Amino acid sequence: MRMYDIILKKRDGGELSPEEIAFFVKGYTDGSIPDYQASALTMAIFYKGMTEAETVCLTQEMAQSGDQIDLSRFGDLTVDKHSTGGVGDKTTLIVAPTVASLGGKLAKMSGRGLGHTGGTVDKLESIDGYNTTLKAEEFFAQVEKVGISVIGQSGNLTPADKKLYALRDVTATVDSIPLITSSIMSKKIAAGSKNIVLDVKCGSGAFMKTLADAEILAENMVKIGKGCGRNIAAVISDMDVPLGENVGNALEVIEAIDVLKGNKKGDLYEVCTALATQMISLTLSLDPDKAKQMVVGAIEDGSAFNKMKEWVAAQGGNANMLDNVSLFKNAEIVYEIKSEQSGFVSQMDAAEIGNAACILGAGRASKDDVIDFAAGIVIKKKVGDEVKIGETLAVLYTNKKEAVEPASKRYLEAIKISKEKTQRNPLIYKIVR
Amino acid sequence: MRMYDIILKKRDGGELSPEEIAFFVKGYTDGSIPDYQASALTMAIFYKGMTEAETVCLTQEMAQSGDQIDLSRFGDLTVDKHSTGGVGDKTTLIVAPTVASLGGKLAKMSGRGLGHTGGTVDKLESIDGYNTTLKAEEFFAQVEKVGISVIGQSGNLTPADKKLYALRDVTATVDSIPLITSSIMSKKIAAGSKNIVLDVKCGSGAFMKTLADAEILAENMVKIGKGCGRNIAAVISDMDVPLGENVGNALEVIEAIDVLKGNKKGDLYEVCTALATQMISLTLSLDPDKAKQMVVGAIEDGSAFNKMKEWVAAQGGNANMLDNVSLFKNAEIVYEIKSEQSGFVSQMDAAEIGNAACILGAGRASKDDVIDFAAGIVIKKKVGDEVKIGETLAVLYTNKKEAVEPASKRYLEAIKISKEKTQRNPLIYKIVR
Repeated sequence: MRMYDIILKKRDGGELSPEEIAFFVKGYTDGSIPDYQASALTMAIFYKGMTEAETVCLTQEMAQSGDQIDLSRFGDLTVDKHSTGGVGDKTTLIVAPTVASLGGKLAKMSGRGLGHTGGTVDKLESIDGYNTTLKAEEFFAQVEKVGISVIGQSGNLTPADKKLYALRDVTATVDSIPLITSSIMSKKIAAGSKNIVLDVKCGSGAFMKTLADAEILAENMVKIGKGCGRNIAAVISDMDVPLGENVGNALEVIEAIDVLKGNKKGDLYEVCTALATQMISLTLSLDPDKAKQMVVGAIEDGSAFNKMKEWVAAQGGNANMLDNVSLFKNAEIVYEIKSEQSGFVSQMDAAEIGNAACILGAGRASKDDVIDFAAGIVIKKKVGDEVKIGETLAVLYTNKKEAVEPASKRYLEAIKISKEKTQRNPLIYKIVR
Repeated sequence: MRMYDIILKKRDGGELSPEEIAFFVKGYTDGSIPDYQASALTMAIFYKGMTEAETVCLTQEMAQSGDQIDLSRFGDLTVDKHSTGGVGDKTTLIVAPTVASLGGKLAKMSGRGLGHTGGTVDKLESIDGYNTTLKAEEFFAQVEKVGISVIGQSGNLTPADKKLYALRDVTATVDSIPLITSSIMSKKIAAGSKNIVLDVKCGSGAFMKTLADAEILAENMVKIGKGCGRNIAAVISDMDVPLGENVGNALEVIEAIDVLKGNKKGDLYEVCTALATQMISLTLSLDPDKAKQMVVGAIEDGSAFNKMKEWVAAQGGNANMLDNVSLFKNAEIVYEIKSEQSGFVSQMDAAEIGNAACILGAGRASKDDVIDFAAGIVIKKKVGDEVKIGETLAVLYTNKKEAVEPASKRYLEAIKISKEKTQRNPLIYKIVR
């Protein structure tokens, strides 16, 4: 078999055989197929697409290219959630304990943040003592006992995807549906859960800008997940605006606690219950309406919040902080951004708000930067809200005095205030399953 | 400027600016742009094509990527010929002295053969003493005095094309009209002649299998040549069958002498006069009918042949061999392939006949092989010819006894004999100018 022939076949619109896809993934991972042939193939795939069978095969080959997490000891109760990424996205902190409190098993490896997007592992580390690096057996034992563990990524998961994604990133072949799908799904397949719920973000702050594009991606991922033998659903939700009000690590944990305690409704609550509903529905094979009742009930009766405390404590964290959030580290500087005009907030650039938080110390500009857990932004006015001159638009939290002015400027540039009241987009566009 | 943006623009069907094309060619040549980005771009070009302006620009940038031959001292009389390649293609040996005898200036660098295709420089070296490596000033002085010099390629012509062609060859992006055009034309532009005639081969033995494809390529090359400020014409000729009867170095020189002496008509004569007619018509700005009269006249009155002797002598070759071809090295073994059936020759695989000659010692399988100038094949029956059992189909010449049987077998497999008489394809399909 020759890589040349594989490129030629795809170039001319042919369907690659499982053997050809396996040959490519293995050869590219071990370096026997050079980058320049891989990039020619991915560009041909960009134009010619891949069939469902091809995409399933590529996904599975990439999933098998490195370590795979074996969660078979938990039967069919394992459940995972994946978000296509966004600003202020603390859904895992809410959804995971809620679902665990209802019997789902969440053995989750999560990432760290880079640039304007945060990472769940960073957020959890704002809780004193929380240990994000468990040994495999500790990890599994905790999932067995508590129903949930969230740790940082370790091991060598999907090296084929890592290498191919880095190549696509510099050769303009990222935005190809079969390649996006196989990249995301290979990681989820390797992560081992039987049930998977995808949170597909749509809008100016997301990778998929239009609902039509988000639908295509969601439908494709669901098809491929099923093709790989998983139960799967996708929730398409709006990402024109940051989710919830808090951006920054400790601030997001505090907001998650508020939701889990049943003290806070709104967009974050809606998206989290929608996701948890799908997770419970798939995992326990329940009607979504029934699943939703259970999810809402778990928040109302405190079992979701109690599960979070149990989880945090099991993983070495100071669970008292969840009862008393004043124990979280405070920022020295608290600065209110006041509106210079009256009207209605009509636009928010979620990515730019993430960048403003990053300037305050909440994120990493490069891999080795140290995060200030206390830093961040609390948004006081969101799209559709009325605002008067002098009213507070947002509150900045930081320990860097010099960051206030540029972050404040960036925040003001990221929002638009108009005379007319703008309707917010629907929060949940569609469920695909 | 970033290569990523250039790939993205072409991927989405945009037209690259001259600055972007220059950035790519310079960066790829100096290594600052990696192969994997270049192959992504060439695959995008495969699908999205290039406008005439883009192709002209790519051609000129590649022509300027290395040494360029300055022939301005010869005014507008310089003229070059390029064949897209074929078996038994000894047209340069005939066309060049014919055109030089009529006032054209031919300062020609020519290649060596590899695989089934021969090279003009190898053929010329079958003449004792012929020197294919002149110094630049000797080369120019000979063109000035005699009107013609043919030497081997030297210097660093079109390194961008060399590098890009090698990449396209392993990434399935060779057969793209703008890329083929710019590859061929960049070499011709760098070679410096004002007037260029292209011999575009069409058929089973050629790169372009159909007339429609050959026409597209010819028309594109003519457009691009004009866009680069050259006078240019293309002759589309048949390559279903080897041109002429002799394949092999000395054998081809001997056949060329026969044509130049006016002793031999047939397909080779026809193609050569068609090419020479276009060359003279462009170079002297003459009506093609008038140019054709002059070309035919130069062969009939001996001036073309005399020019060949003058040229060979000027370049150190033994011109007596041209008057007395028995002075060429003889092969020890002469073997006649007899027909095992009666009928009509209905097909000939030109490439496979080239390979049979290669086995006999006429060509190189790899770059460092030594050629046996005496080895080769004289074809006795071509497509359309009647053949009876026991009649000679071809004569093999070699100094390698062990080569006779495999070459003979290969030759027989390369031709097809049918009951019905097959009409040969037209020899000249079209002139594009």
